[in-house]
Amino acid sequence: MTAPLRVLVWNENVHESQGRPASMAHDYPEGIHGAVAQGLAEHLPNALIRTAVLSDPEHGLSEDVLQQTDVLLWWGHAAHDEVADEVAERVQRHVLGGMGLLVLHSGHFAKVFKRLLGTTCSLSWRNDGEREVVWTVDPAHPIAQGVPNPFVIGTQEMYGEPFDVPPPDELVFVSWFSGGEVFRSGATWRRGKGRVFYFSPGDQDYPVYHHPDVRRVLANGVRWAHSPGLERRPLEVTNPQRRWDG
Amino acid sequence: MTAPLRVLVWNENVHESQGRPASMAHDYPEGIHGAVAQGLAEHLPNALIRTAVLSDPEHGLSEDVLQQTDVLLWWGHAAHDEVADEVAERVQRHVLGGMGLLVLHSGHFAKVFKRLLGTTCSLSWRNDGEREVVWTVDPAHPIAQGVPNPFVIGTQEMYGEPFDVPPPDELVFVSWFSGGEVFRSGATWRRGKGRVFYFSPGDQDYPVYHHPDVRRVLANGVRWAHSPGLERRPLEVTNPQRRWDG
Amino acid sequence: MTAPLRVLVWNENVHESQGRPASMAHDYPEGIHGAVAQGLAEHLPNALIRTAVLSDPEHGLSEDVLQQTDVLLWWGHAAHDEVADEVAERVQRHVLGGMGLLVLHSGHFAKVFKRLLGTTCSLSWRNDGEREVVWTVDPAHPIAQGVPNPFVIGTQEMYGEPFDVPPPDELVFVSWFSGGEVFRSGATWRRGKGRVFYFSPGDQDYPVYHHPDVRRVLANGVRWAHSPGLERRPLEVTNPQRRWDG
Amino acid sequence: MTAPLRVLVWNENVHESQGRPASMAHDYPEGIHGAVAQGLAEHLPNALIRTAVLSDPEHGLSEDVLQQTDVLLWWGHAAHDEVADEVAERVQRHVLGGMGLLVLHSGHFAKVFKRLLGTTCSLSWRNDGEREVVWTVDPAHPIAQGVPNPFVIGTQEMYGEPFDVPPPDELVFVSWFSGGEVFRSGATWRRGKGRVFYFSPGDQDYPVYHHPDVRRVLANGVRWAHSPGLERRPLEVTNPQRRWDG
Repeated sequence: MTAPLRVLVWNENVHESQGRPASMAHDYPEGIHGAVAQGLAEHLPNALIRTAVLSDPEHGLSEDVLQQTDVLLWWGHAAHDEVADEVAERVQRHVLGGMGLLVLHSGHFAKVFKRLLGTTCSLSWRNDGEREVVWTVDPAHPIAQGVPNPFVIGTQEMYGEPFDVPPPDELVFVSWFSGGEVFRSGATWRRGKGRVFYFSPGDQDYPVYHHPDVRRVLANGVRWAHSPGLERRPLEVTNPQRRWDG
Repeated sequence: MTAPLRVLVWNENVHESQGRPASMAHDYPEGIHGAVAQGLAEHLPNALIRTAVLSDPEHGLSEDVLQQTDVLLWWGHAAHDEVADEVAERVQRHVLGGMGLLVLHSGHFAKVFKRLLGTTCSLSWRNDGEREVVWTVDPAHPIAQGVPNPFVIGTQEMYGEPFDVPPPDELVFVSWFSGGEVFRSGATWRRGKGRVFYFSPGDQDYPVYHHPDVRRVLANGVRWAHSPGLERRPLEVTNPQRRWDG
Repeated sequence: MTAPLRVLVWNENVHESQGRPASMAHDYPEGIHGAVAQGLAEHLPNALIRTAVLSDPEHGLSEDVLQQTDVLLWWGHAAHDEVADEVAERVQRHVLGGMGLLVLHSGHFAKVFKRLLGTTCSLSWRNDGEREVVWTVDPAHPIAQGVPNPFVIGTQEMYGEPFDVPPPDELVFVSWFSGGEVFRSGATWRRGKGRVFYFSPGDQDYPVYHHPDVRRVLANGVRWAHSPGLERRPLEVTNPQRRWDG
Repeated sequence: MTAPLRVLVWNENVHESQGRPASMAHDYPEGIHGAVAQGLAEHLPNALIRTAVLSDPEHGLSEDVLQQTDVLLWWGHAAHDEVADEVAERVQRHVLGGMGLLVLHSGHFAKVFKRLLGTTCSLSWRNDGEREVVWTVDPAHPIAQGVPNPFVIGTQEMYGEPFDVPPPDELVFVSWFSGGEVFRSGATWRRGKGRVFYFSPGDQDYPVYHHPDVRRVLANGVRWAHSPGLERRPLEVTNPQRRWDG
């Protein structure tokens, strides 16, 4: 018996609450977090998949909740600044202690992502309903398994280079946009004992999280980011006695 | 007084010799090597720039010539198999000993490139006169200095992912093609004491090596690949006495 | 039902055949391959673990055998040159197609390792019965799970820097030797669709492959190098029609 | 005429001010910053080398000073928390905009280093006057030029693994300590447009910054971290019109 994988899908839930854009009601009746959770459930039937939102107490990210989370997914856009510094620090600490983290789309500007990467995480963008073609550049990567190469998202916001992130440890996907831009749309970084995967497809204006290949990528990402068997605590400074030189 | 940078531009010179395509006579009257050398000279006025071709004795790549070469550029396409294994091994040895190497376009299938990288170096391609937009993804990299982001090559052969190379040490450029593909078009690897830069734009069918931004990239690449002050010999196995533990 | 993991332990078996050193009879009565296989079996009870040696037909590495191998371990020392180029090329092709490869100790000079890495793979060495302390520098890496940090090998051949390999994709272990040297003793590289792990502890003069922590590292390495679900063939050049730009 | 390289050596200057340890007066009569600056001047005779300390207004790190700084060196130990968050953020922003940064020894716990790397930057340590042997693992790296491999620091504080930093972009030095530990003592990371080099040798208790090889490493590091020709501003989000697809 293996313990079930414990996944938490976090969403600021602001577009949903405000009903903007109006298409949200149709595209994401259960919220973006609901659609993401549903997509994960299709591929991870034995996982425990929960959701949390910004307006929850402690944003739904209490110490206890994080202790019970193997992999956290993060979607935010309009309210990055409303995430308490204390909570961002707590999430960072859990990642350094071994929790997996998937940062989605506009989450590139989330406090926790910028804290973990150390850069501005800026990029170029254009909301013009473009075609995105997502190419796998590392076909053997676990996150790319079962994902067609390429797959197409018919209508999308454009995210383009330069993307101000540290050189990824692994570059998995690169996207083409009809307007002429490219983007490193799927990339990984190790931080402390934790694994971080950023995946750019997804926006409040488009039903991207219903796309079957996007859902497969997210499920693969969750499996990849899960590091079983680690004690959930960051590395700490130690002052050992001399003992190894025999 | 600094010794001048010694550059050698190597070309198989087969398309030129055979007059195929016919446009070569117009696009590359001095051969692809001639155009590349001319472009380098614009940016590196103090460098010693020579050329060599497959039909030269030892392909123009004798031990003595390589000893006198700081950075080698390699263009090949139709005659990779005609490069003697002995010469490919010699070039590899010089790279491991500290010589810089720029591999251009269809040189991805050159013996020396495959020997240094260890993979198939395969890719997808389509010769359909497409537009290539070359994006800088590492704006502070020395090879990208002074290069517009992006720059456009109006008519080009498409090279697309997946490109079967080891994960680059540094990814500098990613290209967009009008047909929907993307390509890691500028990437670096360190091998032994030498530096390798692969740059994909360039083809016998198109006058790409006259493009001012391509020329700047190549000149930047030569400067970057040059490692002054190294003794030109690969690392060797040693069997030292115990002496460092005090 | 998951198909069992298929592991092949390859050994040149020359020290064993020649009875040199004499201690082999005591340390490795079943050969180094036998000891390695036994260690893996302790940790991977459901795996199919086979062995092969240089003197077998095709060195025991026929196309059919490799097709049936998920992860290959390679030990060689005195007879690297006796491995047929054709077989080294075949093993390389299978790695590029997705087979895992663990290269052990003096295997750093194996043809297949040098072909995959592209460098001299040289290092410094001294056979003086030194103490080796193996430190984990990436505590969350799957290969380090359950491995004490550090662990000690009481008596060992020294392998020291500089180790002429490409920068590893992941550095897992660094060793300390009592004579004053250090060594990147556990490192990984991705090549094509395959994963390569080099682990230096192990020598014909010392019973290192009976060390419980070494055995755990090798078993972890096998699990890590296994890429299930890949079609076993290297990437190939393709010439697709235009179809993705909509 | 090239503009002179502008270097700023920053030191918290707390041990010096407090006269602890008493050996500071003998080892570092001009402060650690003074010794570092003197060492740089030996190798960089044309550079403009200045110093600043914690007690200066704005810690000597005003916007104007940083604008006039190509490469900053950072030494801190006892007073990391006394560095204003605003100043740490400012230094981070200048690094992302292209300023080079060398972080020295106990500076691994500096706010700016942790902000740039995103991890705890913890390690093990023991102040027992041990021998440190510094090995070059990347002999062709510019920071290693002219540096003996290895070089020995006779008496040092031990810094040991695991060092909780992201995987370095380049690993240049690995140290051996007589007590049995190893440490990745010289490593680089790119962040935004800036380059970061961490070098561990150096402590208030030992005259390490008078060691000729340490001085050479620091001077090489300054040269390497300098990125001439960049506009000093971090990358920013942009919202371009569609214009590249022809």
